[in-house]
Amino acid sequence: MSQETMPNWLDKRAKLTPNRVAIYFEKESITFEQLRQQSLQLAKKLTTIGVRKGTHLAVYGHNSVDFVRCVHAISYIGAVGVFLNTKLTAKEIVYQIEDAQCNYVIYDDALIEQMECVRDQTEVTACSFSALQRITITPFERKEEVDLADLHTILYTSGTTGYPKGVMLSYGNHWWSAVSSALNLGISDKDEWLVAMPLFHVGGLSTLFKSVIYGMPVHLYASFDVEAVHEAIMHQGVSHVSVVSLMANRLLKRLGEGQYPSCFRCMLLGGGPAAKPLLERAAMKQIPIIQTYGMTETSSQIVTLSAEDALKKIGSAGKALFSAECKIMIDYQEARPNEVGEIVVKGPMVTKGYYNRPDVNAQTIIDGWLYTGDAGYLDEDGYLYVVDRRKDLIISGGENIYPAEIESVLIGMEAINEVGVIGQEDCKWGQVPVAFIVVNKSYEVTFDEVMEYTQPKLAKYKLPKRIYVVSSLPRNASNKLMRRQLAEWLERGDVRIEHALD
Amino acid sequence: MSQETMPNWLDKRAKLTPNRVAIYFEKESITFEQLRQQSLQLAKKLTTIGVRKGTHLAVYGHNSVDFVRCVHAISYIGAVGVFLNTKLTAKEIVYQIEDAQCNYVIYDDALIEQMECVRDQTEVTACSFSALQRITITPFERKEEVDLADLHTILYTSGTTGYPKGVMLSYGNHWWSAVSSALNLGISDKDEWLVAMPLFHVGGLSTLFKSVIYGMPVHLYASFDVEAVHEAIMHQGVSHVSVVSLMANRLLKRLGEGQYPSCFRCMLLGGGPAAKPLLERAAMKQIPIIQTYGMTETSSQIVTLSAEDALKKIGSAGKALFSAECKIMIDYQEARPNEVGEIVVKGPMVTKGYYNRPDVNAQTIIDGWLYTGDAGYLDEDGYLYVVDRRKDLIISGGENIYPAEIESVLIGMEAINEVGVIGQEDCKWGQVPVAFIVVNKSYEVTFDEVMEYTQPKLAKYKLPKRIYVVSSLPRNASNKLMRRQLAEWLERGDVRIEHALD
Repeated sequence: MSQETMPNWLDKRAKLTPNRVAIYFEKESITFEQLRQQSLQLAKKLTTIGVRKGTHLAVYGHNSVDFVRCVHAISYIGAVGVFLNTKLTAKEIVYQIEDAQCNYVIYDDALIEQMECVRDQTEVTACSFSALQRITITPFERKEEVDLADLHTILYTSGTTGYPKGVMLSYGNHWWSAVSSALNLGISDKDEWLVAMPLFHVGGLSTLFKSVIYGMPVHLYASFDVEAVHEAIMHQGVSHVSVVSLMANRLLKRLGEGQYPSCFRCMLLGGGPAAKPLLERAAMKQIPIIQTYGMTETSSQIVTLSAEDALKKIGSAGKALFSAECKIMIDYQEARPNEVGEIVVKGPMVTKGYYNRPDVNAQTIIDGWLYTGDAGYLDEDGYLYVVDRRKDLIISGGENIYPAEIESVLIGMEAINEVGVIGQEDCKWGQVPVAFIVVNKSYEVTFDEVMEYTQPKLAKYKLPKRIYVVSSLPRNASNKLMRRQLAEWLERGDVRIEHALD
Repeated sequence: MSQETMPNWLDKRAKLTPNRVAIYFEKESITFEQLRQQSLQLAKKLTTIGVRKGTHLAVYGHNSVDFVRCVHAISYIGAVGVFLNTKLTAKEIVYQIEDAQCNYVIYDDALIEQMECVRDQTEVTACSFSALQRITITPFERKEEVDLADLHTILYTSGTTGYPKGVMLSYGNHWWSAVSSALNLGISDKDEWLVAMPLFHVGGLSTLFKSVIYGMPVHLYASFDVEAVHEAIMHQGVSHVSVVSLMANRLLKRLGEGQYPSCFRCMLLGGGPAAKPLLERAAMKQIPIIQTYGMTETSSQIVTLSAEDALKKIGSAGKALFSAECKIMIDYQEARPNEVGEIVVKGPMVTKGYYNRPDVNAQTIIDGWLYTGDAGYLDEDGYLYVVDRRKDLIISGGENIYPAEIESVLIGMEAINEVGVIGQEDCKWGQVPVAFIVVNKSYEVTFDEVMEYTQPKLAKYKLPKRIYVVSSLPRNASNKLMRRQLAEWLERGDVRIEHALD
């Protein structure tokens, strides 16, 4: 029989290495034993206001130690955490609270105004972090063990079409995610992981579980500040940092001709396909960028490049982690090597489904295989290349165009800082690709210059037909490009589009 | 829900790192991809002779690549491996084959004579490794996945009283053992583990699973040869070695004033409590000896000291691994810190029981807790100290005496190379402790000298009443001292007892 229960993770970690630092945040640092005591205390307070085993508890906060305590307090009660994106509108928050059937929400005091709007629109017991602090504790029967089958988290996905869906993640999902990552990246008692992504996204949240399971300090940041992160890597013993392309780009620019210290061993790059010029620049400078592919539904990473392959397979997201599997499907047939199709994954870190969405679950998870909706291929050696999110696919005159391919060419121009590509309706071709660029202030750039640079690199049908200059691109809280919003800007002639190149 | 199935481990490993070396043995080295192909080939041949899913297949061999292939071939068939101790008599082998209900035995050609005797006494289909090689393959339907609940191994325990019992170990037991060990010792792609213990014991066998799960080369040796092992640590990139006290002692003597290279990071010391002088000598020389406690029933380690505690808690076996728990019980009550009682453990690496022994299982495994029969205590910080195997307890005048305590004092004498202590019947005290020593050839030693050395260190009732000189101590295949045999020698006045000190 396989394992179903084990001692509470934070308890166990605090027994093993009580005095090791668990979290660095701003000027604060707390050890695993302190985190255990504080989380247990918080669990008691939550119980006092009525949170019970099985309660769906919404948590609405920016990155903070309070947030971390919540994640663990939940495990002492056996409640389920629904972590809300702080960038959402009140209406969107209300939707998630109701969809996930939350009776309670606890929130960051900084978000009180937004919370007031939420409370106007729904009946939920709300309590701020500071109000919780003041509560007098009543006796409490804590949960001693974790059951891997139990639900810990519901996280809403960005929602490609229709309403967002709540991804259910169990203790087992989080456990296997942490263990499988360790089997790929290795673990050492010198590891320290920097997180400047929101904890309400799986990329941030998953490091908290790694922290207690590995006994590893997390350097937590309220947001991504290139100076602070650079400084931490250079001088504070950080060994790992989780990034998306944009962050990696900025860090590399900040590094300039410098070099990272040798203890820095992994810049884990997720959140969508990365631009090749970035990876090549990093490879040249021996910066340990390790590409990975994952999503909320897979509790973060499920396919990751190994350090030893990082330079051999630039642009690949690697192979499925030890306990996981990955294949490419075209019309329910397995694709041949190098054939682009839908990325389909399986493994113990994969969600059992979306909360209360039996219809979607039946379509998305078939025989334990999750159909991701993303496009990619496996090369002849079995390495995954993510081509694009399928939903962003542009079909032009019958040809498939993946925006990320065009973006990765354009970003190679010195004059271009950021780029996003979408399809625009076209009466002749059905759709044509158009690009949105953020121009480096020290440059002027014309349409012809972009074409001159691009033409040798892309087939004619892939060349952007129009190029719009914007001052910034729409990104979600984890800094992922939101292409759907670009399409909306275009549709309504949004003022954020400064002008089109001629 | 927790994970039940995953891709076959060797397949997965060969996909991830096909060209990494899996096994070094004598002049040979084979990669994971080669090992995969060869193991699959062997699986086909075994199927041809009639081995099927669920078949109990006895494997009777010395350490070799053939043995390693067997361990994995079993997983491609879904058979169960019963690994036989090559030191056993034919009668003992027959007992285990019949008790485990094996229909097939495959054996090392070097063991043909012993095998003939076995075949005279039981009906079992036997096939030598070389005969298997010559078999023509028939079509074969391989098992693609492993189910963690399935049985992989039956290993017979040395047997303290009565007949030996077959410990059942599942894929899940082996998996969690490997993963839990990694969470304690860390894993790096530079790790290489040296095994000079028999693969038919769990200490050896478990490293084969670590090898495929971590992607780590194993340096396999036919037996423990201090010169060869020393050489491998010094010059062949070995990072870990599994040892028992005796081996550690010899290695340290061989090292003399030298130093191990920095890539050597773990001398994992199991197989019973270690003598303190040994540990102190190692600590002084900064040799990374890491004590561990485990047994066949726990798939090897279950309690292990961490590297950071190795020097702070000399003599302790550490704390229960991440997914495991350990407590001390006295008359079904949990002991207080520093109180000696029975060591009781729980965790996903613990066997579900002995094969066909419902009565013993009901007594030994209670609510998932394994009652080990070993004596020990937890200090106030929760570190385990193994006092002794309970079965070896000497009760003298109502006082409990643990042989290992006396042994660890005596081994501190320069003149003494090895020592074993047992209880001898005594009409006054019930039992008294007596010692068997192997004397260092460059020394002469008298009873009085031993007493002079010992008296300041041990309470009077613990002083050995007689000291016998022998040329070697009886040890089992994993070099564990067999105290029961010493008692037999004493009883029948065996010639191996050279003389008593006066």
